[in-house]
Amino acid sequence: MLKKTTRLTLVDQVILQIEALIESGKWPVGKKIPAEPELVAELNVSRNTLREGIKALCHAGVLYTKQGDGTYVCSSSTLGVAIQRRVQRSSLLDTLEVRHALELEAARLSAERRTEADIARFKYCQERCNYYAEADDIEQFVVFDIQLHQAIVESSGNRMLFDLYAHITEALQESNTAFLTKSFANHLPRDNHQDLIEAIIAQNPEEAGKAVQLLIDGLKSSVDELWPQHEAERS
Amino acid sequence: MLKKTTRLTLVDQVILQIEALIESGKWPVGKKIPAEPELVAELNVSRNTLREGIKALCHAGVLYTKQGDGTYVCSSSTLGVAIQRRVQRSSLLDTLEVRHALELEAARLSAERRTEADIARFKYCQERCNYYAEADDIEQFVVFDIQLHQAIVESSGNRMLFDLYAHITEALQESNTAFLTKSFANHLPRDNHQDLIEAIIAQNPEEAGKAVQLLIDGLKSSVDELWPQHEAERS
Repeated sequence: MLKKTTRLTLVDQVILQIEALIESGKWPVGKKIPAEPELVAELNVSRNTLREGIKALCHAGVLYTKQGDGTYVCSSSTLGVAIQRRVQRSSLLDTLEVRHALELEAARLSAERRTEADIARFKYCQERCNYYAEADDIEQFVVFDIQLHQAIVESSGNRMLFDLYAHITEALQESNTAFLTKSFANHLPRDNHQDLIEAIIAQNPEEAGKAVQLLIDGLKSSVDELWPQHEAERS
Repeated sequence: MLKKTTRLTLVDQVILQIEALIESGKWPVGKKIPAEPELVAELNVSRNTLREGIKALCHAGVLYTKQGDGTYVCSSSTLGVAIQRRVQRSSLLDTLEVRHALELEAARLSAERRTEADIARFKYCQERCNYYAEADDIEQFVVFDIQLHQAIVESSGNRMLFDLYAHITEALQESNTAFLTKSFANHLPRDNHQDLIEAIIAQNPEEAGKAVQLLIDGLKSSVDELWPQHEAERS
């Protein structure tokens, strides 16, 4: 295997270690992190190095220090914060295209790698989507629509792909909910993921890719219809 | 158009403004940034807010302060640094899959949006690749191979897609050059991008997608052959 470059300062290493603690779920968002002496021992670094690392993560938007209280986890990673800032400067169409790129590759990989547990999760989300479509409950429909897509990306087995997808989806959350709500206002679709899920179950990457492409094309023409001025935003 | 959430602090706004100056090319990597009083006037913020913003960008790895000298631009964006750190924690195969996802969508979009100037650039890079293939000059071949792929992604007209692609390619640079060098060691290919470029010129997104898929499949089987142990690295 190729070695990657590792010219990391001690502070960079502290940052990576803390990020790993957050991403592993050991330090979830909202948690107050341990006191300084404990961390100095656990991470095996000097107090100054630790402080620099924590400060850096505060500036990056991952940690948050309350004066006279302590330091809390407020975001899942620096990558998430950086993507959030990048999405804020991008048009909705550009962001959707990036998300779709990740989704298409994920569907192909999922068709190759999905497990029986993954399939059960897809079917549960699909069943929920159909249930809330029958009930005309847009809000809950959108929740399970997003969950289904995330479950497919997660089943690709590629953690970096999943992280990027999840961060972009998170950064888009408000636009996304508003968008799906608006585009499905007149007709909550039934079984619109059927072809995609079938292709993944049949372990057919090509058909899975085509099914995502069809969903994407539908979504993009909705954007064109609903926000025809989006082109004007391109820089 | 949908409004995105904009709960930004003043420091966040300074960070975004400075990032925009860097990305616009007004402050290129290596440049010494203006002195504090000038920036306070230009960005219209207090000195404390400015200092916080600059410190944050130093911690994020975008700016670098030399004691007694001044502050320099050392990376093109916080997103680039965050991606670099993420790539360092990922397997080569995971990273390649993400890059390919972006590349595939970019090829499809390029087929729809490429200009005559883009086509001229593709042909120039292709001609250089063939020239260095004939000369058995692997190093220069790789330079123009990467340039060709970046030109295709840039011609998609999606700046966010291009940024992510460029940051990942940059983070992979050493592995990538070593990898291409190793996989092309016995045979520098001639005209291996011909189908892709033809599909883009013919404005055929489907064929462009297929051509990228073929290049990707070839690359992935090379990874399997050359580094069969890569699977063991998956977390």
